[in-house]
Amino acid sequence: MSVEAPPKPVILTGDRTTGPLHLGHYAGSLRNRVALQHSHRQSLLLADAQALTDNAHDPARIARNVIEVATDYLAVGIDPAVTTICVQSALPALAELTQLYLNFVTVARLERNPTIKDEIQARGLGRDIPAGFLCYPAAQAADITAFRATLVPVGEDQAPLIEQTNEIVRRLNRQVGHDLLPEARALIPEVGRLPGVDGKAKMSKSGGNAVPLSASDAEIDAAVQRMYTDPGHLRASDPGKVEGNVVFTYLDAFDPDPEAVAALKAHYRRGGLGDAALKRRLAGVLRDLLGPIRERRAEIARDPDRVMDVLRTGTARARAVTAATRDAVQEALGLFRL
Amino acid sequence: MSVEAPPKPVILTGDRTTGPLHLGHYAGSLRNRVALQHSHRQSLLLADAQALTDNAHDPARIARNVIEVATDYLAVGIDPAVTTICVQSALPALAELTQLYLNFVTVARLERNPTIKDEIQARGLGRDIPAGFLCYPAAQAADITAFRATLVPVGEDQAPLIEQTNEIVRRLNRQVGHDLLPEARALIPEVGRLPGVDGKAKMSKSGGNAVPLSASDAEIDAAVQRMYTDPGHLRASDPGKVEGNVVFTYLDAFDPDPEAVAALKAHYRRGGLGDAALKRRLAGVLRDLLGPIRERRAEIARDPDRVMDVLRTGTARARAVTAATRDAVQEALGLFRL
Repeated sequence: MSVEAPPKPVILTGDRTTGPLHLGHYAGSLRNRVALQHSHRQSLLLADAQALTDNAHDPARIARNVIEVATDYLAVGIDPAVTTICVQSALPALAELTQLYLNFVTVARLERNPTIKDEIQARGLGRDIPAGFLCYPAAQAADITAFRATLVPVGEDQAPLIEQTNEIVRRLNRQVGHDLLPEARALIPEVGRLPGVDGKAKMSKSGGNAVPLSASDAEIDAAVQRMYTDPGHLRASDPGKVEGNVVFTYLDAFDPDPEAVAALKAHYRRGGLGDAALKRRLAGVLRDLLGPIRERRAEIARDPDRVMDVLRTGTARARAVTAATRDAVQEALGLFRL
Repeated sequence: MSVEAPPKPVILTGDRTTGPLHLGHYAGSLRNRVALQHSHRQSLLLADAQALTDNAHDPARIARNVIEVATDYLAVGIDPAVTTICVQSALPALAELTQLYLNFVTVARLERNPTIKDEIQARGLGRDIPAGFLCYPAAQAADITAFRATLVPVGEDQAPLIEQTNEIVRRLNRQVGHDLLPEARALIPEVGRLPGVDGKAKMSKSGGNAVPLSASDAEIDAAVQRMYTDPGHLRASDPGKVEGNVVFTYLDAFDPDPEAVAALKAHYRRGGLGDAALKRRLAGVLRDLLGPIRERRAEIARDPDRVMDVLRTGTARARAVTAATRDAVQEALGLFRL
């Protein structure tokens, strides 16, 4: 009697291809993906179609960054032999499922989605949002279900999108009378979002407060120099605050020696530890982290055919998976099939 | 020196597959399609995906009627050797272009579309419309442009949908800096919409006032019996009104002898022509028209494989055309291409 291994849980995640990835992505998602890729069946979607929903005026940038983000994936250690790296716009089944799911969700429901609401407000778009942007929760439901993903790593602010997906899943399952599609669960990272070097909550390239994965040692040093510490900590001998001190947030996120960091925190609190020494340590930690990534990145970028091969292989694999789901959904709903 | 024939103008039209077609379709579109199919490059889209935008609760009905409508096409004389008959949901490039075009149109613009506005109001749906229904003008733009159609036969009430298509076309052409896609022109039929047998403006199966193309002689007679004439025309000897008299509207639409109809109108106006005689003539005209269609329909329905073959061949042809347009659009916009 043979004992089969239980199937690995399926993870779908990915990135909008609006720019190369940075340290915030590394802390919040990339390193988790590297850690999970062997114990899970993981697919990474280069979400160019989703990036177009608010970048239709500049599609060339979105296209260029497909390669940049894929290069980032490989540079941080995503192994394309176990993780499927694929291009969203090259998977027609996703567009077909999106179009279908849009019939199972009302305009009012899309407008109530907190993630969409916040983003519309933040951009001051009102009703002049592109229709594709309003509809992207349905597209995301298509992505998640097409891969039959049950785990979707997202930030806390994106959890409502998983709920929207599950509503569509439940609606379809109810209509066909069986569990056609699995519900998905948000996998919210334990580590909160990494702040920008200026202390702002969100690190972003457009915000000018990001450290790209390709940063040189000099760029790393300059970024750490700019970093926000404790404004009340004027002399090294003064007691300093650890909470809200960006340098400590980064040390917590990246220093491989947490005990040493704990000792530094105690020292900083009681006074006698200068910002300069602290920043020297962080700069060293980040150089050690990003140096090898930068080198692998440069090596990969010298061979663009290799990245294209990875994308072709991964996308072909994803095409088979997503087309099978589309077929199953069409069949279960009783749609016309040629 | 050889002189090439100018290319035939491209027509795209079709029907939502919500039910078998009826006499209203025959008068308003089917016979035009038969007449135009040799002088034009014509494609007929069995619009099952569009029909789902407000029928997602009953996809089986939409699927069943793909075959019914295709059978109607063949029965009235559409020649699949010259007209491409194809299934919308089996053309993934249409979904892909729809998703793309949704980024080039705002929610506000979709909501302003008079056709959508009227239909939302007529159905009392408010914001609880399915998102797919709000978005269908973008899907229609995908249909029209994917076939590079320049002529789109539509009722007058649907002309705003062509304008929406052309707005997207102009926006794309402007962005890429050349005429990537042609604008389309609405081809509005000279003959107005055929009223229902009860005199209501629109003939529809759900309205219970339609004559299906498969009607038997007895059903034709019964439908003509129910027909609205002139309520003031109580005795045959009374003068009668021709305007608004449904029997005359139908004779105008279908009687092969317009001079005889003109003489009947004069006779009816001055009195002495009874409704019974008039209705006998119309019943004869409709029996002559629908008899052969009904017989061909029955013959075709006996061989379902033949209809499936027609759909497979036409859809394969349409798949090549629509995929080529999708490729051209993606390339011109500079989207990522594997």
